[in-house]
Amino acid sequence: MNKQIRLASRPSGWVKEENFTLTEEAVGEPADGQLLVRNIFMSVDPYMRGRMNDTKSYIPPFQIGEVLQAGVVGQVVASRHPDFAEGDYVTGMLGWENFSISDGTQLRKVVAGAVPLSYYLGILGMPGMTAYIGLFTIAKAQPEDTVFVSAASGAVGSVVGQLAKIHGCYVAGCAGSDDKVALLTAEFGYDAAFNYRNSESLSASIREVCPKGIDVDFENVGGELFEAALWNMRDFGRIALCGMISSYNDEQLEPGPRGMMLIIGRRLRIQGFIVSDHPEACQEYVVKASAWLAEGKLKYQETTAEGVENAPAAFISMLTGGNVGKQIVQLADP
Amino acid sequence: MNKQIRLASRPSGWVKEENFTLTEEAVGEPADGQLLVRNIFMSVDPYMRGRMNDTKSYIPPFQIGEVLQAGVVGQVVASRHPDFAEGDYVTGMLGWENFSISDGTQLRKVVAGAVPLSYYLGILGMPGMTAYIGLFTIAKAQPEDTVFVSAASGAVGSVVGQLAKIHGCYVAGCAGSDDKVALLTAEFGYDAAFNYRNSESLSASIREVCPKGIDVDFENVGGELFEAALWNMRDFGRIALCGMISSYNDEQLEPGPRGMMLIIGRRLRIQGFIVSDHPEACQEYVVKASAWLAEGKLKYQETTAEGVENAPAAFISMLTGGNVGKQIVQLADP
Repeated sequence: MNKQIRLASRPSGWVKEENFTLTEEAVGEPADGQLLVRNIFMSVDPYMRGRMNDTKSYIPPFQIGEVLQAGVVGQVVASRHPDFAEGDYVTGMLGWENFSISDGTQLRKVVAGAVPLSYYLGILGMPGMTAYIGLFTIAKAQPEDTVFVSAASGAVGSVVGQLAKIHGCYVAGCAGSDDKVALLTAEFGYDAAFNYRNSESLSASIREVCPKGIDVDFENVGGELFEAALWNMRDFGRIALCGMISSYNDEQLEPGPRGMMLIIGRRLRIQGFIVSDHPEACQEYVVKASAWLAEGKLKYQETTAEGVENAPAAFISMLTGGNVGKQIVQLADP
Repeated sequence: MNKQIRLASRPSGWVKEENFTLTEEAVGEPADGQLLVRNIFMSVDPYMRGRMNDTKSYIPPFQIGEVLQAGVVGQVVASRHPDFAEGDYVTGMLGWENFSISDGTQLRKVVAGAVPLSYYLGILGMPGMTAYIGLFTIAKAQPEDTVFVSAASGAVGSVVGQLAKIHGCYVAGCAGSDDKVALLTAEFGYDAAFNYRNSESLSASIREVCPKGIDVDFENVGGELFEAALWNMRDFGRIALCGMISSYNDEQLEPGPRGMMLIIGRRLRIQGFIVSDHPEACQEYVVKASAWLAEGKLKYQETTAEGVENAPAAFISMLTGGNVGKQIVQLADP
């Protein structure tokens, strides 16, 4: 049988487990031009919260009653598609389910063995590419720049810091627990970090870890942290707007940061981006990151939940910072 | 005698005439390396309000008790400076006063006769350059882009619209009276415009004049208008942040626009700029604009106050939209 997670209802405010429903159906059979994938790992990511709202965006909303979509790594178990053979390992957008039928669209083969398969959902997948695109294509980080990263121990932030260090930047960040902060400097190469939950003044805490001010803010959080980063920007600073996880469960639109005049006086640039707009740079990143992983220059951590039935809880936990590094759900043995 | 306007006190909230004081002193004598200028026209500009606060910025604050600074056009009446002779017409940063002593720093000669001298404070000066830099260097406006301009009939906005039209864009704007709105389409070439003071929904009004959405927002106002423009931005839109005149007299920092998540989903770029960072593009603009003026392709309007003693009132009036086109103060006959 194929266990599946469907959207039961659209969350209003904080997403809850009751917004999801677990169903079971027989494993499908691929038609001509299709293939059947046994899903091994699936990804839960912050952007999925936006797709649960009925809002027009760059990616269509999830539909009530349908199986949710996710980045998945799996193995082909039956194929009537000329480009895929039984036994191939593949990654792409499939479902929150144990088995998915695909027509091969946006599915690509991966090599098993070089790195754990789950890496294709994290450091060698969308989160890693997001770090690279945001830092270099969007923010144009230069050696010796001061880079500040919010949600620094998450799937994206933990890569941003390491890429910035490899590039010769000074890197500081913040996270939501003392353990995570320790990890930032001990494991991910951050020069300085603080626990934003203990901070009495976010702006002062940032000034402490970025005494020269910020040249590049890699913004994952939004809200008060974004405002505090804005106030610490140096002249000609760049803000790569990657996510605003602090507001994804807001019922109303929250106001933006106070002090937007700074953007003029300090000639700042704020730019939003979506990783899928930059396919060539993504390929470039995967080549570089694979080499850095092999050389031990890039470290990677995951938090793994087990079983598709636990995917909703893992997703909700990730939105509140329950994860360290990439939150993954393991659906089957490799 | 030399009449001068000095900063009497720093305004808290709305600037008032009592924040200024009129003094008189004997006309100075230039020392070696200096020159004496008889000031003919002076400029009052929105950015001056920021210099009245004791805040570190790209330009130092005005000091209490000192003569205020302004862009001025005048004539050299005595010179002990090798580069300037009696009778030369010059423009640069001098004082809110009838006569200024200068060491020649950032002063340049202008030719009398080709255009009225006051143009060097407006369409051929900083406001015109600001329009050009914001539209092309910062926002990279392309032919057929939809350009939206707030404060569209002001010193900068009236030029932005015309430059965008010359470039082949669709241009819409808003202003604060029906007369100004009529002028936008009749005189400054705007395709569509509305009176923001009569609008029940700024976002709906913008959608009406920009039915395809906005590719380039030339932002002069900030506050609710900025938020409404943000909501109407198209994918990959650019916001040239030039000024936020709606907030210059705020006593507290006002929050930024709601809905900053749009910046990510629509891949927007918001960029602040200062015209003096771009001297080469400014020179390029003056050459082009002089030709367009001669050919009648660029229209220009001014609102002129008379006498340095009326400069504070003219400044305050300009901050509330009392001007059409460039607000000038005439200090003497050319």
